[in-house]
Amino acid sequence: MRYKITLSYDGTGFCGWQTQPNRLSVQGEVQRALSCLFREDVKAVGSGRTDAGVHAIAQVAHFDANKEFEPKSVIGGLNAFLPPAIRVIDAERAADDFNARKSAKKKTYMYLCYREPQLPLMQNRALAVPRRIDVNVMRRQAESLLGKHDFCSFKAAGSSAKTSVRTIYDAHIVDDGFLIKMFLTADGFLYNMVRIIVAQLIKSGLGGDADILKLIAAKDRAQAKETAPACGLYLFSVNYEDNHVSETAKA
Amino acid sequence: MRYKITLSYDGTGFCGWQTQPNRLSVQGEVQRALSCLFREDVKAVGSGRTDAGVHAIAQVAHFDANKEFEPKSVIGGLNAFLPPAIRVIDAERAADDFNARKSAKKKTYMYLCYREPQLPLMQNRALAVPRRIDVNVMRRQAESLLGKHDFCSFKAAGSSAKTSVRTIYDAHIVDDGFLIKMFLTADGFLYNMVRIIVAQLIKSGLGGDADILKLIAAKDRAQAKETAPACGLYLFSVNYEDNHVSETAKA
Repeated sequence: MRYKITLSYDGTGFCGWQTQPNRLSVQGEVQRALSCLFREDVKAVGSGRTDAGVHAIAQVAHFDANKEFEPKSVIGGLNAFLPPAIRVIDAERAADDFNARKSAKKKTYMYLCYREPQLPLMQNRALAVPRRIDVNVMRRQAESLLGKHDFCSFKAAGSSAKTSVRTIYDAHIVDDGFLIKMFLTADGFLYNMVRIIVAQLIKSGLGGDADILKLIAAKDRAQAKETAPACGLYLFSVNYEDNHVSETAKA
Repeated sequence: MRYKITLSYDGTGFCGWQTQPNRLSVQGEVQRALSCLFREDVKAVGSGRTDAGVHAIAQVAHFDANKEFEPKSVIGGLNAFLPPAIRVIDAERAADDFNARKSAKKKTYMYLCYREPQLPLMQNRALAVPRRIDVNVMRRQAESLLGKHDFCSFKAAGSSAKTSVRTIYDAHIVDDGFLIKMFLTADGFLYNMVRIIVAQLIKSGLGGDADILKLIAAKDRAQAKETAPACGLYLFSVNYEDNHVSETAKA
């Protein structure tokens, strides 16, 4: 039978979601815990990969196992076998055709930066931008992202995606005076796409030459060279409903 | 000449502010960095000790050194020698009679808890309280703290303070829906006083038998046994002015 689980993790100590030989990965740890709990080899399929150092507020994965457990027991059982940096925050039985990756309709990422020199308590949590930054300029640039575009200017080498056309449903910035929180919701993201977009938004806020519309039109990654560091990036939510009400209101 | 520095630190990996044999302390690291920068043995005097695992948004210390450096060079120089978990965020020349501990007029501590089961990204940052908690009950209890009282019910064994009378100037709680932030400002705090108070406030919010007024009147630590864990506690600010406008508005 198929299960759907929601995971939260501090990506700092991991090579990313995906298993890699001799590296500590989130997927590897989850599969290890699953095998301990279900006493069989279990493969976990995530909604997508997160890179090394990228965090998850709510990553979704599915797996198949022979035993039937109550969702509550799956949560408690897995958390007993997982390191504290990874927690299962939700579990449910899923339809056999549910696929954490393929069934995903929308994903939301959050990127955090703050206006001060590097602070110890923000280490590995957010990007320090100790310069005057104009959030309204960033907001205007973010608006240009909305809609269906070919985002090949914002795709890192190594992307295996068949097409670089994606639809961005929401792009907004919450500024609480300390943290600048950038939210992006799309039907999917290309490799490093969020971090490349964020780098351009920050550049624009700092008065740099960054024009999202022009960059989209250019269809050339060489025009958008910078990639924001992984530490500020959070997979915020994955949505499987067609008529999705933005969950970013929670933030 | 005397310098005043303001420090921010992630207390997770330290045995606390104060140096201890064969332990990693914040004071020890700061003194090591000072000796590297000034090329002489320098002793740093903090506004007070913070316990193992307790963080600082803004701890203040003073030290005497023979060399004269610009404040900017003190900040940059010390940060070059300090681990990333400790940052000097401000530095200034101070009068010879300035004493980080004795001249302090008011201190503000912040305690963070959140309403969910343990989350990886909140590990070592805040206390998880995964139960229904009534913040208004906590607020009413916090009001009873205000004013000059004998707080010996809220003093851990091992306190070397001559008197347990303290004046609490401000006690308020900010609830952003996720984090519950408790702020306490006083002319000084007894050993573990904030954590013992916080434990009672949380207990009251959870519907437990906790009555701050009664506990103050009891003058008996045995009536207030619990101590909230260190991970949620932050030294928020130290104030050296008599007519202090609360800095907690920043939070």
